[in-house]
Amino acid sequence: MAPRSPLAPDAFPSLPVIAGAQFAIAEAGVRYKNRPDVMLALLDPGSVMAGVFTRSATRSAPVLDCQAKIGADSTEPAAIIVNSGNSNAFTGRNGVDATQAVTAAVCQVTGVPEARVFSSSTGVIGEPLPYDRIIQKLADLTGSLDPAGLPDAARAIMTTDTFPKGAGAEIDVDGHTVKIAGIAKGSGMIAPDMATMLVYIFTDAKIGRADLQALLGNLNARTFNNITVDSDTSTSDTLLMAATGTSGVDVTGHEGFAEALHGVMLDLAHQVVRDGEGATKFVTVTVNGAATDVDARIHALSIANSPLVKTALAGEDPNWGRIVMAVGKSGAAADRDALTIRFGDLLVAEQGWVSPAYREADGAAYFKQPEIEITVDIGLGQGMATVWTCDLTHGYITINADYRS
Amino acid sequence: MAPRSPLAPDAFPSLPVIAGAQFAIAEAGVRYKNRPDVMLALLDPGSVMAGVFTRSATRSAPVLDCQAKIGADSTEPAAIIVNSGNSNAFTGRNGVDATQAVTAAVCQVTGVPEARVFSSSTGVIGEPLPYDRIIQKLADLTGSLDPAGLPDAARAIMTTDTFPKGAGAEIDVDGHTVKIAGIAKGSGMIAPDMATMLVYIFTDAKIGRADLQALLGNLNARTFNNITVDSDTSTSDTLLMAATGTSGVDVTGHEGFAEALHGVMLDLAHQVVRDGEGATKFVTVTVNGAATDVDARIHALSIANSPLVKTALAGEDPNWGRIVMAVGKSGAAADRDALTIRFGDLLVAEQGWVSPAYREADGAAYFKQPEIEITVDIGLGQGMATVWTCDLTHGYITINADYRS
Repeated sequence: MAPRSPLAPDAFPSLPVIAGAQFAIAEAGVRYKNRPDVMLALLDPGSVMAGVFTRSATRSAPVLDCQAKIGADSTEPAAIIVNSGNSNAFTGRNGVDATQAVTAAVCQVTGVPEARVFSSSTGVIGEPLPYDRIIQKLADLTGSLDPAGLPDAARAIMTTDTFPKGAGAEIDVDGHTVKIAGIAKGSGMIAPDMATMLVYIFTDAKIGRADLQALLGNLNARTFNNITVDSDTSTSDTLLMAATGTSGVDVTGHEGFAEALHGVMLDLAHQVVRDGEGATKFVTVTVNGAATDVDARIHALSIANSPLVKTALAGEDPNWGRIVMAVGKSGAAADRDALTIRFGDLLVAEQGWVSPAYREADGAAYFKQPEIEITVDIGLGQGMATVWTCDLTHGYITINADYRS
Repeated sequence: MAPRSPLAPDAFPSLPVIAGAQFAIAEAGVRYKNRPDVMLALLDPGSVMAGVFTRSATRSAPVLDCQAKIGADSTEPAAIIVNSGNSNAFTGRNGVDATQAVTAAVCQVTGVPEARVFSSSTGVIGEPLPYDRIIQKLADLTGSLDPAGLPDAARAIMTTDTFPKGAGAEIDVDGHTVKIAGIAKGSGMIAPDMATMLVYIFTDAKIGRADLQALLGNLNARTFNNITVDSDTSTSDTLLMAATGTSGVDVTGHEGFAEALHGVMLDLAHQVVRDGEGATKFVTVTVNGAATDVDARIHALSIANSPLVKTALAGEDPNWGRIVMAVGKSGAAADRDALTIRFGDLLVAEQGWVSPAYREADGAAYFKQPEIEITVDIGLGQGMATVWTCDLTHGYITINADYRS
């Protein structure tokens, strides 16, 4: 296993306990030995579920199953079953059978209706899921459910991750406390398209299904959909959220709740980037002044995904010429002579050339920091976007020339 | 300088001498020391010029100058002046002035009208071109012009290239011999959009300007536009072709000539991939059965540009799951269960899963070869495309975390 990312947070955060949600983990030996690789979440009756999934045309059987189930209203209990080590993706009819076998078994052991059992699998693509190993652990899992078990669950869903990822918030809504807690996994194959690898968020807030789904989709577009490690999009990306309603506090349309949820999602998204395979730099790319917001995002992702920009970051080389190149190739509108480029507060280039006040030594000193901000003003309009990425290092090559994902 | 690519041809080819074209090189010290870094090509009166250039929105001053000139009919002599070490891109007004100074000086020394002087610059972006160093060498260059000088010119235009690139052909047209000879440079920042880094092709054939331009654009779409090293598109991509007409043989609409030119262009394009920064594998990705040819190219480039596919190639890991992932993320139409994947002649996956006859050991043995063929049948229609790429290795990171381009 790779050493803990140098960009990792100091410690796993203290997460609030969400009443109405319980968690358990087990060592099923799906692929990894001597570490937890399955997690079960059980949600009380009345919990509202929402989800966002990968748009990959080769998405996995569990993703397709979740998508078929997520849009239904229900007051029944719900369950989430997740395994790491095997993604059950591109496994043909066998993959569908495996997903059905697992969700049916969860239904049988927990009493949760099968239509409310959501499953995810993450890990190697194209190998049959040994689902019997998961099913054999279901009685143990059900017997060890714990409302404080979310941090352990964060460990059970890891694959090439070097640290478990969690984030939480407690906010005051009209004198009542509402809690949010979430976990995520993801390190490579990160260029989410509608969701990231695996993310599970829980709240005790009360909110309708359609409202929660709309809020989640909205915030996803500003968080998980704007991170990229390597421009490669997973077949298994899943973001699931459960609102147990146990606080009794209705947050429909409440801006403070949306802000807090946005904060939790952004925190988790940033942690995925901080655990980017081989990453040594956490990079914020902001593009403003584009013709439209869509154009701004195209430019920002073109910069964030460029191997030449990412290797310059790895080499601590403030190579702004490669940023010009990435803007030029993106396909979105740009005018060479209207570009302005900044590294942090340093004005680097303007009016089609390097700024007279810019000193290469200043850029080089700035690039030695672990956190880098690149800002490009396209100079054409009001479009804005921010994306987050990491550098491309020897570590990425080592991990991916060896690891079978 | 990096060692010669393991995928390089054994030797530089013997190129035919094109009557009506002469070449010279010089050491101007633009950036590199003790090696040629400028080449001059002089074309006799009556030469027909055609060209294809990058579509980057941040293209360089010399590219913009070439584009403004290339569409004009003329029977005057022509010249091509190229320097390596500095791309004169994103250099603002100074860049335009530098290009004008160089082309005006070539006009003065050679007598070629300025409107027929085409210039290219390749190398670092964003630094002022020390054009006086080029101008100081023009008298020497003009004094040493040589019809057999094309192989030397191939060396003068190199940057991170580890070998000079050339290709030629001689064909019989109605009992007369027609000759084609071309050179190219390129190794990184290779995902051409309308043209590759720098390519110069010469022929003694007779053909009209509009016909040559159409043929060149057509063949470019099947050669240079279908190679990718790192998905990054240069600000300087230029493909220039000169037909001197000295053979007296009209090749307008001649299929044999088009085929021979296609062969020369494909050979040069493949050489650029073989010199891909850090490359150890030459990879042909063919997609057929797509809904359209456009979709097939999107899928093929998605595979060829995927960092996870490219690192699997570097690790000699026949990781077909990553090919499924790359097809899924491409955005073009695909049906997971209709995909067929082959490595060379090995049937790897079909009907949504690994083929029963496939043995991992066979795939692993195949991936140890330096030349790999990946074929994907999308199973939806008749669309086809082939692209060429290389693997992503520690060598790419080393070159690009250090080299300032």
